[in-house]
Amino acid sequence: MQTNERLLSAIENYLAQAEFPAEPELLYAPIGYSLSGGGKRIRPMLVLLCCNLFSEEVQHALPAAAAVEMFHNFTLLHDDIMDNAAVRRGKPSVYAKWGRNVAILSGDAMLICAYRLLSESPAQLLPRILRTFDDMALEVCEGQQYDMDFEQKQKVSVVEYMHMIELKTSALLAGSAVIGALLGGASEEDCRKLRRFAVELGLAFQLQDDLLDSYGDQRLGKAIGGDILEGKKTYLMITAMSRAEESARDVLRNAYRDPMLTDAEKIAAVKAIYDRYDVPRLAEQQISLRFERALGILDTLSVEHSRTQPLREFALSLMGRSK
Amino acid sequence: MQTNERLLSAIENYLAQAEFPAEPELLYAPIGYSLSGGGKRIRPMLVLLCCNLFSEEVQHALPAAAAVEMFHNFTLLHDDIMDNAAVRRGKPSVYAKWGRNVAILSGDAMLICAYRLLSESPAQLLPRILRTFDDMALEVCEGQQYDMDFEQKQKVSVVEYMHMIELKTSALLAGSAVIGALLGGASEEDCRKLRRFAVELGLAFQLQDDLLDSYGDQRLGKAIGGDILEGKKTYLMITAMSRAEESARDVLRNAYRDPMLTDAEKIAAVKAIYDRYDVPRLAEQQISLRFERALGILDTLSVEHSRTQPLREFALSLMGRSK
Repeated sequence: MQTNERLLSAIENYLAQAEFPAEPELLYAPIGYSLSGGGKRIRPMLVLLCCNLFSEEVQHALPAAAAVEMFHNFTLLHDDIMDNAAVRRGKPSVYAKWGRNVAILSGDAMLICAYRLLSESPAQLLPRILRTFDDMALEVCEGQQYDMDFEQKQKVSVVEYMHMIELKTSALLAGSAVIGALLGGASEEDCRKLRRFAVELGLAFQLQDDLLDSYGDQRLGKAIGGDILEGKKTYLMITAMSRAEESARDVLRNAYRDPMLTDAEKIAAVKAIYDRYDVPRLAEQQISLRFERALGILDTLSVEHSRTQPLREFALSLMGRSK
Repeated sequence: MQTNERLLSAIENYLAQAEFPAEPELLYAPIGYSLSGGGKRIRPMLVLLCCNLFSEEVQHALPAAAAVEMFHNFTLLHDDIMDNAAVRRGKPSVYAKWGRNVAILSGDAMLICAYRLLSESPAQLLPRILRTFDDMALEVCEGQQYDMDFEQKQKVSVVEYMHMIELKTSALLAGSAVIGALLGGASEEDCRKLRRFAVELGLAFQLQDDLLDSYGDQRLGKAIGGDILEGKKTYLMITAMSRAEESARDVLRNAYRDPMLTDAEKIAAVKAIYDRYDVPRLAEQQISLRFERALGILDTLSVEHSRTQPLREFALSLMGRSK
């Protein structure tokens, strides 16, 4: 088995050696810009880790690992247009740097490049890998559409929200895990379990992201309160809306666009209601529940317990819980 | 062998029975709208015709045929955003009807659906079919990028223009032909020849499209002069620019944005120069050259001459030359 550091550097090397044509420059330059822009390589790591659970050899999984990373970056490119987002990973987004048309077309090319990488997977596994990837990719689009739908909706339930993030965030992790497992030669049953593992991990990860946006984390040094200032319907907001009485709901609905309040006051007003209705603790509970469930699934795989250790470490580090 | 009418109705039936989820509506409704919006089904016809050259059975080529039609419609969806085009096939474009974000995301979903259809092709052919499709899809993106680049460029050569339309228009026909041939069990050599056939046919088709836009065709009832009014760098414009003297070039460059001229005067001014420099005849020559070359390639295939008859008829009807 390989250490997580070695797997990560295998991914970085593989991505770095990918060459794109020089022309047309406006089509290909944004792809290199986007791929070299950092990111934690969470999805390709999942491909390799899940492959490595069942197979000592992971080399043959590198194209698929690169494919899911390429796909992820494609979604960011197009999401940034849809969200009018000027910054991505601390740098100008492709949309801001090159404009709408370049971001659309380079994004399209990235999606095609993702398929091209995927097609390099071993031929006998290709039909199943493709089907997994296609389904996953459509689910991510569905999640993005629901997310945009929610902006227009008055009321979003917790169930609807969990369904949306299962599509928008978990599906790509689940697809990555299953593709890795297939490449490792896993059984149907182990594939199903790893899908479930990744879905739960994705939910825990997204809920924690929501929580950290409002309550922060020194380690990440993330700006606090962005979601509140945008009036975003996060897990915290939706849970608070479902628990608060009407007068508090009114604050939750309108604070972010109240011209009489400073940003700090908006954040304080909303967080006061979150706190009053115990929302952070409920979120913590959900996060722990999902995360424990994910780790529990790893115990049930048909491999020796010690083989699951790197995947556990990866999950812990993803959640910021590694020692 | 099957008649072209039967092949076309097989495509229409196959596309009509494709079902999409009801939700999220804004993701899937535009796909159905786009696919049912007409269009001549040129690309899926090419898949089936090229398959039928080598195989009596074409049923197994229907998913790939639908995939290239899906891909073509995906490009239209995204092109319409990039071109701010409000009308497509006489109806509001998806962009105009649902807005930018829906057009981006539904387009993405269509590209994924195209791959999903393609993946239903016979497993033993899948790696080659995928590679052909991936290369073709990237070429189409490259062509679209060059086309947009040309809008910003002062001077575009005829060679550059031909290269652009070979990517933007011919590549998809060529990919369709090769995928069909592969599904029919064609040899490498026949695949190469059919690729060449489709490239030449695509060039003839695109040049004729340029010519008809300025010189019209009663049969198509197409508005005349749209390209001239947009100041588009078509084959006619580029050829005229390369042949005209400076004063005429000045008219070609600026007539479309001259506030002193009516639309009819703009068109007349540009066409007078086209005529003076023999541009329509040169275009006709290129069209005939390319078209004859395409038909000539069919004579060299390793199949009986009679088997190529439906493909000839298809090519003639595409060029508006059928009896």
